[in-house]
Amino acid sequence: MDKHPFWSALASAAVPYIPGEQPRDRVFIKLNTNENPYGPSPRISADLLAKEPFQLYPEPTCYHLRKVIAEGYGLTEDEVFAGNGSDEVLGFAFGAFGDENHPFAFPDITYSFYPVWTDFWRTIPVQIVPLREDLSIDLKSFPDCDGVSVIANPNAPTGIALSAQVLKDYLAEHPNRLLIVDEAYVDFGAESMVPYIHEFPNLLVVQTFSKSRALAGLRLGFAMGQKELIDALIRIKDSFNSYTVSRLTQVCGALSFEDSAYFNETVSRIMHTREQAKADLRSLGFQVTDSKANFLWVLHPSVSGSDLYTALREEGILVRHFSAPALTDYLRITVGTDEEMEALKKALIKILEKTS
Amino acid sequence: MDKHPFWSALASAAVPYIPGEQPRDRVFIKLNTNENPYGPSPRISADLLAKEPFQLYPEPTCYHLRKVIAEGYGLTEDEVFAGNGSDEVLGFAFGAFGDENHPFAFPDITYSFYPVWTDFWRTIPVQIVPLREDLSIDLKSFPDCDGVSVIANPNAPTGIALSAQVLKDYLAEHPNRLLIVDEAYVDFGAESMVPYIHEFPNLLVVQTFSKSRALAGLRLGFAMGQKELIDALIRIKDSFNSYTVSRLTQVCGALSFEDSAYFNETVSRIMHTREQAKADLRSLGFQVTDSKANFLWVLHPSVSGSDLYTALREEGILVRHFSAPALTDYLRITVGTDEEMEALKKALIKILEKTS
Repeated sequence: MDKHPFWSALASAAVPYIPGEQPRDRVFIKLNTNENPYGPSPRISADLLAKEPFQLYPEPTCYHLRKVIAEGYGLTEDEVFAGNGSDEVLGFAFGAFGDENHPFAFPDITYSFYPVWTDFWRTIPVQIVPLREDLSIDLKSFPDCDGVSVIANPNAPTGIALSAQVLKDYLAEHPNRLLIVDEAYVDFGAESMVPYIHEFPNLLVVQTFSKSRALAGLRLGFAMGQKELIDALIRIKDSFNSYTVSRLTQVCGALSFEDSAYFNETVSRIMHTREQAKADLRSLGFQVTDSKANFLWVLHPSVSGSDLYTALREEGILVRHFSAPALTDYLRITVGTDEEMEALKKALIKILEKTS
Repeated sequence: MDKHPFWSALASAAVPYIPGEQPRDRVFIKLNTNENPYGPSPRISADLLAKEPFQLYPEPTCYHLRKVIAEGYGLTEDEVFAGNGSDEVLGFAFGAFGDENHPFAFPDITYSFYPVWTDFWRTIPVQIVPLREDLSIDLKSFPDCDGVSVIANPNAPTGIALSAQVLKDYLAEHPNRLLIVDEAYVDFGAESMVPYIHEFPNLLVVQTFSKSRALAGLRLGFAMGQKELIDALIRIKDSFNSYTVSRLTQVCGALSFEDSAYFNETVSRIMHTREQAKADLRSLGFQVTDSKANFLWVLHPSVSGSDLYTALREEGILVRHFSAPALTDYLRITVGTDEEMEALKKALIKILEKTS
């Protein structure tokens, strides 16, 4: 028992999320944390950063950034909330919409931070919903009662997406149930629910600048929904930390969001590389889901996930392996550059030859 | 009643902290949020920041930054925790050390976020301890039971500091009670408790880069204490958000901390300006506490705090006025540059002439 006299019950009971490895010296080909290999919009310049008055607090509501996002997506500023990464935004959302009377439901295989947040808030009953045999999310198995359904779309780590039509039908059939759609990976080929925010008061969409916009290092995520939902997030945030998003992050976020040409070009490139990698991995005998994300979820019938992980690490390639029983056979491989995926392919050929 | 069907009890009950105004266009002389007028260490260069790989997640534990702080203060890395502003660090500390069985106590007049955090965590019983008549903190009035005492030293918004000896005596007399010392303003002339961390397992010290190190815009705070206390903070943080501190903030924080010459020079300058401003305000009839912070806590016997606030605003000078009954007669005035304080003095002379 690790309990210490000064520790709260929460600190004692915590079962933290474990993020992917961040090697301190980048000697690895890093395909383990779904980062974007191309870097952010070149509109972000040193000169622009230097102009910011570092000594002044940031605008606490991220007003300009929210305005840029709202304009880009056909929303109003008060339908957008920005936070310190989509993890913080989701963490706040779990606290804003979950309690004894607002139970949560999410899939058994999904972003592994969801159960950590329901534990963090302590009072949220949770129902875990199994995926279908084909690893897709089965909305029909979610509970019908009042409460909150949370899905990642595309789902992580499977990469499989539901269509907007399926989600619209679900929202229409469950007007008293809130649906939180975590669209961290949506820009890589799935359908966003943002166009339906005005239609559904029970829809909250969360996105991030860490993946398609290549700003993982700067920590920026945002939620979109009708004003009543955004107001609840603001209340939680302002009860915890007034200034969650750094000045530099706000500036870089707005510049990046406005540069749709660069965004489209790099996202297309990643999607193209992904489809090539799918074909290559299948040709090596891997089972590969039809991922619409910037990662692949793969399983080899003859080598275990953990053996492959270790062997790839020895070859200088980091991928993500999860030890949970349902996930342990698989690997999650981030889509890097064409060159990185070529190196991965070569390493896998070498490893598979050794083991056969 | 603002409750919405989707809102949690926490969202419905929230009474958020209200930060000082952040005007969107800087046309005011801004003496309202205790920012540093001199800007951060010139070692921070935009070119250096631009070299960071924005697309890669930051090191989640802020390892290099913690190492720099630990070396500067004679601690080990595992005795330092870094977060997204000292507000986040304090917010985590309230969750890490407070619950039904770990009640909190803090002064009635202090940083107004403390009661917001005890509400945020929902289960923490709170005892509010009145200040002495002279506005100083009276540790003798704090409860003797197990639990947590939180003080700001110097206190906000009074600026009055307790000596290290008084705090050491308190720690020695209450080994089963945790003392959190919020040293946001300590560098402006009070005694830090950091040298006593190895002596007292019941001491947690929280500091910020927002004031003496002029990085409010970048969001960086840190806690120091024995490893067991730091471990509890890590558990809370990793149950909420893995990557709370941006890459750029980590880099700037380390550069700034290492530049002790610039730090000493700008802190001395602010202290010098503060003492001059104290004398000037007293000569205008103000009561001024002996602030050891980068702000003054002042009261004029013939003009109310809110009238002065409004009149100064009309003169283009923002100061902080709190509407709570015990604080409403006062103003909190940040120590700016000599020129800004001169402008303040002139404006006050003009206002006081009008009202007399």
